[in-house]
Amino acid sequence: MSAPDELTIPSPADFHVHLRQGAMSELVTPHVGEGGISLAYVMPNLVPPLTTAADAESYISQLHKLSPSTHFLATLYLSPSLTPEEIRKAAAAGIVRGVKSYPRGVTTNSDGGIEDYETYYPIFEEMERCNLVLNLHGELPSDIDRGICVMNAEHEFLAHLHKIHNRFPNLRIVLEHATTAKAVEAVKACGDTVGCTITPHHLQLVVDDWAGKPLNFCKPVAKLPSDRQALRDVIRSGHPRFFLGSDSAPHPLANKYPSAVTHGAPGVRPAASGDDLEPTGVIACGCAAGVYTSPILVPLCATLLESFGALDQLANYVSLNGRKFYGYDQPDQLAKGTIKLRRTQAPSNVVPPVYVHPKCQAMGDGDTDKVQVVPFWAGKKLAWEIVN
Amino acid sequence: MSAPDELTIPSPADFHVHLRQGAMSELVTPHVGEGGISLAYVMPNLVPPLTTAADAESYISQLHKLSPSTHFLATLYLSPSLTPEEIRKAAAAGIVRGVKSYPRGVTTNSDGGIEDYETYYPIFEEMERCNLVLNLHGELPSDIDRGICVMNAEHEFLAHLHKIHNRFPNLRIVLEHATTAKAVEAVKACGDTVGCTITPHHLQLVVDDWAGKPLNFCKPVAKLPSDRQALRDVIRSGHPRFFLGSDSAPHPLANKYPSAVTHGAPGVRPAASGDDLEPTGVIACGCAAGVYTSPILVPLCATLLESFGALDQLANYVSLNGRKFYGYDQPDQLAKGTIKLRRTQAPSNVVPPVYVHPKCQAMGDGDTDKVQVVPFWAGKKLAWEIVN
Repeated sequence: MSAPDELTIPSPADFHVHLRQGAMSELVTPHVGEGGISLAYVMPNLVPPLTTAADAESYISQLHKLSPSTHFLATLYLSPSLTPEEIRKAAAAGIVRGVKSYPRGVTTNSDGGIEDYETYYPIFEEMERCNLVLNLHGELPSDIDRGICVMNAEHEFLAHLHKIHNRFPNLRIVLEHATTAKAVEAVKACGDTVGCTITPHHLQLVVDDWAGKPLNFCKPVAKLPSDRQALRDVIRSGHPRFFLGSDSAPHPLANKYPSAVTHGAPGVRPAASGDDLEPTGVIACGCAAGVYTSPILVPLCATLLESFGALDQLANYVSLNGRKFYGYDQPDQLAKGTIKLRRTQAPSNVVPPVYVHPKCQAMGDGDTDKVQVVPFWAGKKLAWEIVN
Repeated sequence: MSAPDELTIPSPADFHVHLRQGAMSELVTPHVGEGGISLAYVMPNLVPPLTTAADAESYISQLHKLSPSTHFLATLYLSPSLTPEEIRKAAAAGIVRGVKSYPRGVTTNSDGGIEDYETYYPIFEEMERCNLVLNLHGELPSDIDRGICVMNAEHEFLAHLHKIHNRFPNLRIVLEHATTAKAVEAVKACGDTVGCTITPHHLQLVVDDWAGKPLNFCKPVAKLPSDRQALRDVIRSGHPRFFLGSDSAPHPLANKYPSAVTHGAPGVRPAASGDDLEPTGVIACGCAAGVYTSPILVPLCATLLESFGALDQLANYVSLNGRKFYGYDQPDQLAKGTIKLRRTQAPSNVVPPVYVHPKCQAMGDGDTDKVQVVPFWAGKKLAWEIVN
């Protein structure tokens, strides 16, 4: 059977996206629909993070103004300030659908993250009762002396997944953005309440792609060829508990490519988040972690899945599996937001080199206030495009 | 026994250093002596690389002008243009002491590197006869479809080491800048003609330290905590065939932190080496690979070795083992260049934030012509310093 030239996909849903705040949010939120997504599950790691139902609902309301045709779902940030009472409040309004857990310090705005899960068992009990989902950023904080580093932090985390799942077998849990063969096996071994998001960039990248290459650097880091193969295999298999969470994570270009300046040199800027300020004042800058895919998301997924022989699983990956897991698979929900894809005709559908907030066009590239984001695969060709 | 406050080290030698060309060479060559090194074994990956005895000798002559009190040894770059005749010529003059092999594309200026060793067996035979050393950058080029990536490229290379060593058991071979436990075991399993350099930065760094942190990014990449432990253990053991090769590899700061610019934006610069020029012109910049340690080298080694209980091995690591392997351990060679180290008194011996060529002081930090290098551990304190 020859490959199709057109596809119809029922209401794609992105179950892990970062839509930021302020001017950045103004830029990226409309990109959700542009990328083909009609249901977006939004992460809470704002500054400060979303810890109350009221704040989450207010945030979703702002997002809705920026993109009225997108259905946004909110999450709360798991931290000591969260109470069972707040869980009940959040669940009642139907806008917050989950609680996101970040191990402390493993990624953007995660300094308030958790260190030990038993302290949160009362929260998990309430979540189980209220039918909220626990979203786990599944990495242990690095601890070099104990042998934990970014290459094995996910593997080392899996014991926590099993412990929580065994203690709360009715609690829906999603292991977010799995990047390893071991994580895939661990989720498969769990019961039906455990799901797993896989990002499109992790279906493509390996460690080489971010070694010295900031645009492809994200957390959890892309791993080995054998890990990428395991992620591809589980998507190709159509396993129902694995689905799209883009982890689309926009950063200003100036934070992906920070300008290193030295103490006392012209143009020294004040220390920014992520800087290690050394005793003598040299600013040793780190590159922000995150890959940005929202504006090209569903065409990117189609292109990638086709590249490893899984195009027939596209609807499962970008829509049906996740919607079924989260309970947003009613016929009317699947119908509204259906998109058509067609194979691109050269020279169309080249990924734009950059997206810039209109108010920032005149700013310099090195200005950290310039809301300018370079997408994944900037300048590369996608094999599929959305038919308007 | 309490820790000493002073140490006398016989003529430290660095068996793997990059001294570049032009203005950069003017800046970094005097740093060799500043770091306590009296014998420097210099790598040939210039542009173009050193492939003839005459070019190597001319290069060494330039280096000697920049640092008259340093003894420089040269290497030739293994490539199809090298002939047994050139090997004989090089060996005869006594300035070239080895031939460096780079697998194609694995690091700076390695595009002309090798792909298959059997084609070089006539060269290796002549080297064995002439008593030249084969210096191996021990990584296979990445080949994702075959499962080879930067995290296992060194392990995958080891079969080549064994094959060459078994075929030429009298050829002295050095596996350069080993970064893995497996490489350490492989070298130990070889005969006495196989040595191994270990850099100080690989005694400290793991993958986390360069993930999104360009200053610590080098090739071969720093690996896992267990690998770092294996490197520390073999140095602590004093194994005679493991010794210092700094792989000190200076790059202009603007190449460690390239400015990403987008097509048509103000200040777009012409594509530079290492850029991927995308079809639409966005310049997706990669960060240059290399850690710079020359100016602080022996104090850094002392500080690091003490940190993992190996201070008693300092003389072996930075001098005796390497000198014995290469045959530069005559009493007069060991005596000339002897240095004294003392424990630093606060607040002295903080690593400078940057080294700048005097001619470049007024240039902007983003200018790739600005010869400005940030050293390893910029702004951090060293526990030891050289007594002048």
